Amino acid sequence: MSLDYQVPLRDMRFVIDEWIEAPAWWRSVPAWADLDSATAQQVLEEAARFVMERVAPLNPAGDLEGCRFEGGEVSMPTGFREAYADFVAAGWPTLALDADAGGQGLPQLLEVALQEMLAAANHAWLMSPGLTHGATACLMAHGSDALKRDWLPKIASGEWLATMCLTEPQAGSDLALLRARATPDAAHGAWRIDGSKIFITGGEHDLTDNIVHLVLARLPDAPAGTKGLSLFVVPKWTVGETGERVRNGVHCEGIEKKMGLKASPTCSMRFEHALGWLVGEPHRGLASMFVMMNAARLQVAMQGVGHAQLAWQRAHAYAHERVQMRAVSAPAQYEGEPAQAAPIAFHPAMRRILLDLRATVEGERAIGYWIGYWLDVAARHPDANERQAAGQLASLLTPVAKAFFTANGFAAASRALQVFGGYGYIHEYGVEQTVRDSRVAMLYEGTNEIQAIDLLVRKVLGDGGEALRALLAHVTADATRCVASHDPALHRAGARLDALVADVQRITGEIRQGSADDRELPYRVADDYLALIGWLLLAFAWARTLRIAMDASADDPFYAEKRVTAHYFFAYPLMAFDHRLRLIEAGCRTPLPHA
Amino acid sequence: MSLDYQVPLRDMRFVIDEWIEAPAWWRSVPAWADLDSATAQQVLEEAARFVMERVAPLNPAGDLEGCRFEGGEVSMPTGFREAYADFVAAGWPTLALDADAGGQGLPQLLEVALQEMLAAANHAWLMSPGLTHGATACLMAHGSDALKRDWLPKIASGEWLATMCLTEPQAGSDLALLRARATPDAAHGAWRIDGSKIFITGGEHDLTDNIVHLVLARLPDAPAGTKGLSLFVVPKWTVGETGERVRNGVHCEGIEKKMGLKASPTCSMRFEHALGWLVGEPHRGLASMFVMMNAARLQVAMQGVGHAQLAWQRAHAYAHERVQMRAVSAPAQYEGEPAQAAPIAFHPAMRRILLDLRATVEGERAIGYWIGYWLDVAARHPDANERQAAGQLASLLTPVAKAFFTANGFAAASRALQVFGGYGYIHEYGVEQTVRDSRVAMLYEGTNEIQAIDLLVRKVLGDGGEALRALLAHVTADATRCVASHDPALHRAGARLDALVADVQRITGEIRQGSADDRELPYRVADDYLALIGWLLLAFAWARTLRIAMDASADDPFYAEKRVTAHYFFAYPLMAFDHRLRLIEAGCRTPLPHA
Repeated sequence: MSLDYQVPLRDMRFVIDEWIEAPAWWRSVPAWADLDSATAQQVLEEAARFVMERVAPLNPAGDLEGCRFEGGEVSMPTGFREAYADFVAAGWPTLALDADAGGQGLPQLLEVALQEMLAAANHAWLMSPGLTHGATACLMAHGSDALKRDWLPKIASGEWLATMCLTEPQAGSDLALLRARATPDAAHGAWRIDGSKIFITGGEHDLTDNIVHLVLARLPDAPAGTKGLSLFVVPKWTVGETGERVRNGVHCEGIEKKMGLKASPTCSMRFEHALGWLVGEPHRGLASMFVMMNAARLQVAMQGVGHAQLAWQRAHAYAHERVQMRAVSAPAQYEGEPAQAAPIAFHPAMRRILLDLRATVEGERAIGYWIGYWLDVAARHPDANERQAAGQLASLLTPVAKAFFTANGFAAASRALQVFGGYGYIHEYGVEQTVRDSRVAMLYEGTNEIQAIDLLVRKVLGDGGEALRALLAHVTADATRCVASHDPALHRAGARLDALVADVQRITGEIRQGSADDRELPYRVADDYLALIGWLLLAFAWARTLRIAMDASADDPFYAEKRVTAHYFFAYPLMAFDHRLRLIEAGCRTPLPHA
Repeated sequence: MSLDYQVPLRDMRFVIDEWIEAPAWWRSVPAWADLDSATAQQVLEEAARFVMERVAPLNPAGDLEGCRFEGGEVSMPTGFREAYADFVAAGWPTLALDADAGGQGLPQLLEVALQEMLAAANHAWLMSPGLTHGATACLMAHGSDALKRDWLPKIASGEWLATMCLTEPQAGSDLALLRARATPDAAHGAWRIDGSKIFITGGEHDLTDNIVHLVLARLPDAPAGTKGLSLFVVPKWTVGETGERVRNGVHCEGIEKKMGLKASPTCSMRFEHALGWLVGEPHRGLASMFVMMNAARLQVAMQGVGHAQLAWQRAHAYAHERVQMRAVSAPAQYEGEPAQAAPIAFHPAMRRILLDLRATVEGERAIGYWIGYWLDVAARHPDANERQAAGQLASLLTPVAKAFFTANGFAAASRALQVFGGYGYIHEYGVEQTVRDSRVAMLYEGTNEIQAIDLLVRKVLGDGGEALRALLAHVTADATRCVASHDPALHRAGARLDALVADVQRITGEIRQGSADDRELPYRVADDYLALIGWLLLAFAWARTLRIAMDASADDPFYAEKRVTAHYFFAYPLMAFDHRLRLIEAGCRTPLPHA
């Protein structure tokens, strides 16, 4: 039995080539005219090798060793520095960066797959380069030419790591309450930043020679609230007049003792008269910061998928190895002996868990990669309307993926732990670490409750339902193809998908109508609404998967397993859609008391 | 804001005095003729004082410090030894032990409340005395006079702690696979035990001068399987011929690194020619051991309640303190200022969490204490038929409480963590510890999946449905009283309860019928069936609570809150009953593939 993480390359290829049919689209994009399925696979295989050989083995030891804070400095666990240097040297940070910005210019879709691998292999390690893409995108979109010249290349390549400094003790989800301030420093044509920030991932470490903080602070004349926030580049080291390195007023005051991610330092930072440069317009810092946040949200969603994949793999391996009691369906003989006991994979309770996990993680992978595909369309399609529509769809789907996948990732880890029985509770088997590590993803980059409000209030009710209609049109198109099938199971799956779409349309209308007189209504039902859309998306994923698998060779066990899991999904887990629908209906009619 | 655990004495009194009406029954029991509500309250108040002052403060530090293993010995965290000594000196271990066995002879019902407090305050600390009652009951029921004389008094009083040594590496849920062996030692009129045991809670520690292990092993002529297991008392120290203490061949080889319960040593034990004494008949060890297991299961159930209570309290306190953004329903002014932001307790997403937790924990408390009450009836009722029926009911309810309450305890801790946002992930706020500590309760004393099989296969299908009919008769009696009410909400609650009973009857019949041809069916649906019964019991708890609260003074905020929570329970959380019912229906008609 191996509990080592195995990158599910075959499943990744299935989603990219067959579920999304990305290679066909790549051929139509000039920059990717030479990119085909085989090349994409080579990239992912190479990534998988690096991830499995260099990153995954550091995961359990990093959890035990943790980070060390001493004299204002943070030491990372053994091996993290070397693996990161090789990651940068191999060019992995720039996989999807535009070629003219020094990157490899590959699709975001492949970057999303890379993120899944890294999260599954070693979430804590991944935290360090976690903001590279966000900081790069932010500076490319809003940085002055001077900022781009001085900072962008080394951030984009990963030579210097970046942080995002938002949170202060009194201001977590509510950035309007931020207090850090910036005063002009005319001598340097720059600003001086003062204030305290908390929960800063990688605020201090020994992985790179410099650390570049992106900091939200208020100018002296700033209005109150979120419209008075400006964004600054504040490096740990600046360059003096004669080119010497000058230590900036950025100090790490300690690292948090956390539930998990022990190999990722979560820092309390003090900015004291720290030299900084404004990014974008004064008071418009939040808009710049959101460029970082959005890039990060899909990454976080894929952390949920990675955790679920790792948990499923391990539970599956263990369940086929561990022999305890003979289940009703187990063979009377086992390994040649009359079987008093059999692997626990025969026990229905264990099969339910394994099938639930598999159905969840494979459905999520399709949806997560699909979002990556829409980001590519939004960036590369020749038609501006198509680009705009794709961007809108990705923006609608991102909060669903962030919240739904991370909640499922934690739940999957806990259910996988149950398969291990008492062994699951001890560190050695790895699954308890996954439970602890995965939990944070429901909190950061906007709590899952914030995602739900973003989805329902801003993106569904806010835009008159346009983005939702576009999503449902995609789902309906697939449903129609399934309904047309002669295969009864596929036909039923299509009909069910049509019914789910109708339910979503109806309940969305009810929420919209009810909200007119009852302003609290959407906030009461937002979490259930997000989960409802999540289940719709999984049903969409499995209906399309079933259709593809029906067309495939009947003998290929890969597709046979897809068919089995699809049938299971429609018979069991999808019941959760109805549960969420009932809860939303309850929320529409029942005011919520104070608590 | 205080995050210190507060024992919910008012709620405990409500359940004991009004929900169960225990004092009225106590008056009819000769031994308790003098026990009234006020006396019971005094006992619980005194317990609460000890728990809050001496046990709870050790919880976070114990988690950080952990246990130390060195040279075969285990040191407990700072303060644990002193608190335990005072616990024993105050007589808490013998609260519900019969007076003629040296105990205080109080009802199990009060013991159950004490268990809830201890678990909430410091689950890890509670693990050490966790087997005192089980070992006492086991020796009282099956020990020879000599064993009772030599070992029982000090185990019962807590002066010596006991362990339960079942698990071996290859034998967890499946005790048939146990290999430890016992050979006769004629010279001592005893046995020599050899073998390895793992996951032994408190296998070694420095709390008491001796540790008494209850060990399952096989005699030389033992048949294979569970019918060849014998139970032995194997102490760490025996007494030599001249009365000197002799170190027995019982060795701790290490302690596990676990997800939580870090202040409770989980030991690997090696028995090497260890002197032991047989408990009960040869080959009948499992029956003796089950006396311990059953006592432990209700304790574990109350750990789930304790964790949920602590998590709810802390989330509630934090939500009323933490100010972030202004929710729709928040006052325009807050603490005299125009409110830009308000406590997060105003946000509907937070209220949903807080109300869900409250509805769960208060409903569970009623059911858990009710089981304690039935244990008292089973032990003290003058009529043998009543005793038998009460025992059967407690035996039906125990696996439901164990699995349902522990799963909810873990879920409650995780949902409470979400209220804290990023702060929830760091150790300081305590809630992440509750997530880690609570997780084990779903695994030990029989995994939750084993409980579900015990419930459905053994206790519902196995006895022809007699115990279930008795339970449903109790529920129906309450439903009838609610339906008769003039209050529309109470009437509706009663009607709903009647409908739930009908659903349970129908689906149980379907399962029974379907199982005739499909032996795997009950195993497919067992987990959902257990949860279904769990939700039925919560509905029963809240219907009765609502009825009592309707009769109470309209102005008393205690009862007003009960009414609000009851209405909430029937509007929102109870939807989960229907979800489980649908899943069982799916399980009845859909065979489960291999996974």
